[in-house]
Amino acid sequence: MTDYFKGIAPVTYEGPESTNPLAFRHYNPDEVILGKTMRDHLRFAVAYWHNFVWEGGDPFGGRTFDRPWFPADSMELAKLKADAAFEMFEILGVPYYCFHDHDIRPEGASLQESADRLNEMADYVAPKMEGGTQLLWGTANMFSHRRYMSGASTNPDPDVFAYCASTVKTCMDVTHRLGGENYVLWGGREGYETLLNTDLDRELAQMGRFLQMVVEYKHKIGFTGAILIEPKPQEPTKHQYDYDVATVYGFLQRFGLENEVKVNVEQGHAILAGHSFEHELAMARALGVFGSIDMNRNDYQSGWDTDQFPNNAPEAALAYYEVLRAGGFTTGGTNFDAKLRRQSIDAEDLIAAHVGGMDICARGLKAAAAMIADDALEAPRRARYAGWDSADHLSETATLESVAAYAEAGQIDPQPVSGGQERLENIVNRYV
Amino acid sequence: MTDYFKGIAPVTYEGPESTNPLAFRHYNPDEVILGKTMRDHLRFAVAYWHNFVWEGGDPFGGRTFDRPWFPADSMELAKLKADAAFEMFEILGVPYYCFHDHDIRPEGASLQESADRLNEMADYVAPKMEGGTQLLWGTANMFSHRRYMSGASTNPDPDVFAYCASTVKTCMDVTHRLGGENYVLWGGREGYETLLNTDLDRELAQMGRFLQMVVEYKHKIGFTGAILIEPKPQEPTKHQYDYDVATVYGFLQRFGLENEVKVNVEQGHAILAGHSFEHELAMARALGVFGSIDMNRNDYQSGWDTDQFPNNAPEAALAYYEVLRAGGFTTGGTNFDAKLRRQSIDAEDLIAAHVGGMDICARGLKAAAAMIADDALEAPRRARYAGWDSADHLSETATLESVAAYAEAGQIDPQPVSGGQERLENIVNRYV
Amino acid sequence: MTDYFKGIAPVTYEGPESTNPLAFRHYNPDEVILGKTMRDHLRFAVAYWHNFVWEGGDPFGGRTFDRPWFPADSMELAKLKADAAFEMFEILGVPYYCFHDHDIRPEGASLQESADRLNEMADYVAPKMEGGTQLLWGTANMFSHRRYMSGASTNPDPDVFAYCASTVKTCMDVTHRLGGENYVLWGGREGYETLLNTDLDRELAQMGRFLQMVVEYKHKIGFTGAILIEPKPQEPTKHQYDYDVATVYGFLQRFGLENEVKVNVEQGHAILAGHSFEHELAMARALGVFGSIDMNRNDYQSGWDTDQFPNNAPEAALAYYEVLRAGGFTTGGTNFDAKLRRQSIDAEDLIAAHVGGMDICARGLKAAAAMIADDALEAPRRARYAGWDSADHLSETATLESVAAYAEAGQIDPQPVSGGQERLENIVNRYV
Amino acid sequence: MTDYFKGIAPVTYEGPESTNPLAFRHYNPDEVILGKTMRDHLRFAVAYWHNFVWEGGDPFGGRTFDRPWFPADSMELAKLKADAAFEMFEILGVPYYCFHDHDIRPEGASLQESADRLNEMADYVAPKMEGGTQLLWGTANMFSHRRYMSGASTNPDPDVFAYCASTVKTCMDVTHRLGGENYVLWGGREGYETLLNTDLDRELAQMGRFLQMVVEYKHKIGFTGAILIEPKPQEPTKHQYDYDVATVYGFLQRFGLENEVKVNVEQGHAILAGHSFEHELAMARALGVFGSIDMNRNDYQSGWDTDQFPNNAPEAALAYYEVLRAGGFTTGGTNFDAKLRRQSIDAEDLIAAHVGGMDICARGLKAAAAMIADDALEAPRRARYAGWDSADHLSETATLESVAAYAEAGQIDPQPVSGGQERLENIVNRYV
Repeated sequence: MTDYFKGIAPVTYEGPESTNPLAFRHYNPDEVILGKTMRDHLRFAVAYWHNFVWEGGDPFGGRTFDRPWFPADSMELAKLKADAAFEMFEILGVPYYCFHDHDIRPEGASLQESADRLNEMADYVAPKMEGGTQLLWGTANMFSHRRYMSGASTNPDPDVFAYCASTVKTCMDVTHRLGGENYVLWGGREGYETLLNTDLDRELAQMGRFLQMVVEYKHKIGFTGAILIEPKPQEPTKHQYDYDVATVYGFLQRFGLENEVKVNVEQGHAILAGHSFEHELAMARALGVFGSIDMNRNDYQSGWDTDQFPNNAPEAALAYYEVLRAGGFTTGGTNFDAKLRRQSIDAEDLIAAHVGGMDICARGLKAAAAMIADDALEAPRRARYAGWDSADHLSETATLESVAAYAEAGQIDPQPVSGGQERLENIVNRYV
Repeated sequence: MTDYFKGIAPVTYEGPESTNPLAFRHYNPDEVILGKTMRDHLRFAVAYWHNFVWEGGDPFGGRTFDRPWFPADSMELAKLKADAAFEMFEILGVPYYCFHDHDIRPEGASLQESADRLNEMADYVAPKMEGGTQLLWGTANMFSHRRYMSGASTNPDPDVFAYCASTVKTCMDVTHRLGGENYVLWGGREGYETLLNTDLDRELAQMGRFLQMVVEYKHKIGFTGAILIEPKPQEPTKHQYDYDVATVYGFLQRFGLENEVKVNVEQGHAILAGHSFEHELAMARALGVFGSIDMNRNDYQSGWDTDQFPNNAPEAALAYYEVLRAGGFTTGGTNFDAKLRRQSIDAEDLIAAHVGGMDICARGLKAAAAMIADDALEAPRRARYAGWDSADHLSETATLESVAAYAEAGQIDPQPVSGGQERLENIVNRYV
Repeated sequence: MTDYFKGIAPVTYEGPESTNPLAFRHYNPDEVILGKTMRDHLRFAVAYWHNFVWEGGDPFGGRTFDRPWFPADSMELAKLKADAAFEMFEILGVPYYCFHDHDIRPEGASLQESADRLNEMADYVAPKMEGGTQLLWGTANMFSHRRYMSGASTNPDPDVFAYCASTVKTCMDVTHRLGGENYVLWGGREGYETLLNTDLDRELAQMGRFLQMVVEYKHKIGFTGAILIEPKPQEPTKHQYDYDVATVYGFLQRFGLENEVKVNVEQGHAILAGHSFEHELAMARALGVFGSIDMNRNDYQSGWDTDQFPNNAPEAALAYYEVLRAGGFTTGGTNFDAKLRRQSIDAEDLIAAHVGGMDICARGLKAAAAMIADDALEAPRRARYAGWDSADHLSETATLESVAAYAEAGQIDPQPVSGGQERLENIVNRYV
Repeated sequence: MTDYFKGIAPVTYEGPESTNPLAFRHYNPDEVILGKTMRDHLRFAVAYWHNFVWEGGDPFGGRTFDRPWFPADSMELAKLKADAAFEMFEILGVPYYCFHDHDIRPEGASLQESADRLNEMADYVAPKMEGGTQLLWGTANMFSHRRYMSGASTNPDPDVFAYCASTVKTCMDVTHRLGGENYVLWGGREGYETLLNTDLDRELAQMGRFLQMVVEYKHKIGFTGAILIEPKPQEPTKHQYDYDVATVYGFLQRFGLENEVKVNVEQGHAILAGHSFEHELAMARALGVFGSIDMNRNDYQSGWDTDQFPNNAPEAALAYYEVLRAGGFTTGGTNFDAKLRRQSIDAEDLIAAHVGGMDICARGLKAAAAMIADDALEAPRRARYAGWDSADHLSETATLESVAAYAEAGQIDPQPVSGGQERLENIVNRYV
């Protein structure tokens, strides 16, 4: 056992009146809402990378955090890091965590060594997982090393494509072995810096074929979790192919994968794509590809991925409302893809940030559930479209001419009806 | 004949050294480039709305332009407007124009009267078109009237859907009758102001079915032009369903229309969606849906649709480079969806703005054509991906395992190769 | 009495549990907080323009609202409009309203007629104000008419400058006569569309001299209210000189007005300038120019002035926290520079939107007041800077050398201390 | 001599027709324009940091560049780095370079050792500078080390303030000793991450006092170069106090420094602040604080500091037009604060990028000079404001009343005049 979190007790629910900064005021794991515990609704996961790998650097400065396992370039330090990670999971009582291969093992000198190290680390964490924190998803980091600077599966060099195939295969195997419930692909370098040197058609074909192979392999090994793509419009690249949910959906259709792959929607990525988080969630639901969420908060006015902990309850309510409308999570969950501000250098900051984030999500969930229970938003929504219940303009036999004929025969003159937006916003504010 | 442009002679090509503000310095219609005249490459069109309908208002002020046909609310004024329009087309020598139904006829008191007026105006302009300016595309304005405030085909009221069916049918008929080469759908109100009152699934279904009907009707009446969708992310709505090219492509696939409908890509809309214009053009080409362009320039720092005349030659070169890579225009063309700044109140401003815009496009085209003729960008692009010529990782028999096995057998360690972006940018700057 | 709001009763406080959409749940005017009633803390004002002048148009569509006083181009309709306005003020029980000259009187055929009409309307509304709704501020609309298209006081035509002098003088006189507590200048056209035709130096000099004249005139007529400038970065112009609080402050200093003029800070304008609302408020306080606020909410992802009603309680809390830190309002107040979404076409929408907005502000105020009462944020803030209490590096006698000598003598090696941002955010979330 | 640039010959001017990727096509140092050589107009400088310190990392990946002096953590490697730097300066024939203390010396274990190392490196580069590349400006890096995470002069810890005083003193001394022509302060961490933990008033006071000390020290040591502040709105902090030129100007006035300090304006920072580069330059000129420029290009659609090499000639022309209007550079110059894209990993990329950038600036300068020689933009500008030549509305004796009286006596009705924006844009396009 490390002493990194020494003196910090497991976090418990103390209720809204508590002023204990390391207690839950809203997240009460066993509380039942709409027939399910909050634990099962929210399915919280802690991200290994932000908490245990990132050193506090930004483009203008280096490490600010002082953690005993840095620089974590040996297996020994990687194990110390894992020890600390699971200590934190236990303090928070989270049911899940998520990792990139690269987060839990240092890169080896060869493809083989990297794989061996990943397997060794999997052996190391497996017993720790018996403590109750399972793997929500695994993924491979195919963006940090310089070999990926021009892309992973979309690289101009076919050897990089092959390198990726091996890396993903290894990482899927480990995810499967550890009982991971999903496997995520995040295409940080699948895109371009400049169109001038990019063969767009070819790169899209490479990426599509790669994804098909991943899906085939999933079935082959009997992995029953979901394959998830995480959309993001840009950063690190100037343009990323997995721009947003609608773009990913079109891509999936093009490669025949729309029933095989779902999306992991991140708040911050939604914002960077010019959307609200709830938009991306609603679109994922409408298109049948809702999978999981990366919960965080992007500064609306900083044009990069700020990955802050969520702190706005009304926004969380709108997000979980869409999650509930989508039927809630199945294999997915709420992963905190959020990092401390780099000035928050204490161990206690790590805990407090998660406690605050979990509470915000809990508040959002409760408000969303209450709105659903009260039919507060759905009743007016149904009423607004009620005219369509008796219209058959969309039927298979309808044509532009037949519908036009209806309009012309009646010389109809449709009158506008209030959209009542402010009244609906006020209703939401009754719940948050 | 009106005297609105009195004293302004037809614009002619005078060459780069000319200082005549109303002469072409670069656009030489009969000059042959890559085997085709500039006229046939560029296929310029003037937009009726910005030039003859818009009064110079903005959200904080009203009409600044003083045009004899304003307010154009009678058929008499509509005809005066048409007279002036064709006078301007003749001065500019443009081969095409574009219109919304609403631009050329005042709204009638009924659906029928609106249709009758459109037909009357079609009769009125048809002989004028013999002067040489043909119809690039027609479209229906289904966003200005308050009946469309909550959407056109996506309206919660099925009667609005029916109203639209009649309106589009009439407008397609007129477009067909006038020999229009395309029919455009721009979904300015097909989207939402707030998710709170929106049934996303239903609205997408309405819009998809409507588009299917339009395509069926096109075939029925023997219209051989293209049906085009014009993507735009937002404004007037908070979110528009036709967000960008990739989103539209996914939508078309979902409704089985990806081989029936193409896109009309606008520079300003690309910018608002967070893309470069050339990105959207390249994406349209890659996805097989490139149709036509709305040329203008959006202020990168104003978050609304500024619709300025293009004035940056290097940017125009990158755009026409993608147009040429897509095989050039077939039914499409270069429509100036651009408007004067509201302080540019003189008739001469209208002419000068188009002359400048046409010259910028001509400069862009010439630079793009030269880069293609010299293989200046394609040679390095081919070289960059040359490794794939002998790789079969994408073959139908390849699997994640087989490709991984290749990597593992060789313990490959792919080395990065310079992307040479600045060198390519320097090459482009040799041509612009 | 009009019957526009027929059937809508005066809005009263019913408490948080009320589900009455037209009752206050949080705004309890007589409730005392930190020694002052909520009425006196918040000093709510209704904006004449958004509610009674704006017709629901946007750049792509015209009037959606159907109000009996439209188009309000006669004195008779202007009076009907005023009747409705004061009926709404009474329903809401607001202590203030705000207007532009142009809002309450139709433009006359001449400068004189416009002035006469303004005075006539002032006579008309004066008795109505005895009902309890006073004038928070008046202002002149010097941006809508085409004469202002190239600026008001910054116009290239000195006659426009003179026209503005007369207009502002008349409007200040009326504001003074009606007991207005402030006079606002909003420079919607004081800026430029393009630097190419702009004499920046000259325009800044014109604007500075104009403001000096306004201040001199204020003193001459014994107007004891504040002169306020309302910063906004752009829209309608490409660039506005009153970009943000810091820019306005520099401008005021340059013309010797930093002790004469304060700022009216608008949430939406702060957002458009790349700032948070609380930043602008904090900056105004720090620079000693805090005056009043225009409360609304700008969509973070729409690059134009969306002027939505505020609906996010945590954000309102941060704003009122800065208002309280600035000592609260003196002559200023909370003006709702907010407009209905254009689909919200019912009279009830007008009332509900204000009720919701007032409640959000009340929630914000209460949370802010509690944080101050508990010293919840100030205690950690003081602690963070406590080292400065005993440092004299800033004293008048200190020099770069003397301070450097201290550092060098001790070979100091300052160690970072956690900024605790997430912990502070969690504290805020205990209050909202 | 290193062999890093082995095989790359000094770059020479070959004229516009050259296709040599490592030749100047436009920058002809000895060519005289408006009475001055291009060398003396442009005063090019190479930035040490981007070229010799940055390793190609971004927030999602590490080093891509493979340079023999990395990681440059010893004096030996620092000297190797300096050798390579001066080899590159010679190849490019640039008259200037710029550095942070941290760029040329590795951080020492103590304040003293860091100072000693800086002095040792100054001794090392001094003889190299006899080769012709002088120091345009020096600056201290007070943002990368974790001690600065909460600010430099604005730090909550007064010891950090003192540490900065020593650091800046040392760096000013070295800059002075090496004949540097300016000293720059860039406040990357002078700002805040969250208002919640920030004492804005106090931090502004600290920063103002620090700057006063710097100015006093400059005079004391007889440094005759300019003290420059480099505005930037955000990144790395959420908000930086030196937001833009207008903000800095207000700050300087507040601390009595507006005649002592000038600005170093960066294209990318202007963009991030919502301005055009030419706006910031024009504003600096109008406010009398124009000093120097950091030339680069920010991607308009990436919300972070992309620091690309400039590649758009029309934009460069507008920038140098404002430089020429400001009287050209005195102590300032054109520093390339630009970095390679991280995929551009070859030594040749470093040279090619600068050659392209220098050529773009040269094209811009030539176009700007020609517009000035032809009075192409100034003649219409003067004409636009000509009415003011005979107006005395701004005189000291004028009052709001007297100017209003003029307007009212004449019942003037000013008529708008075209702003002719598109015509002016067309004029510019004749020159670029």
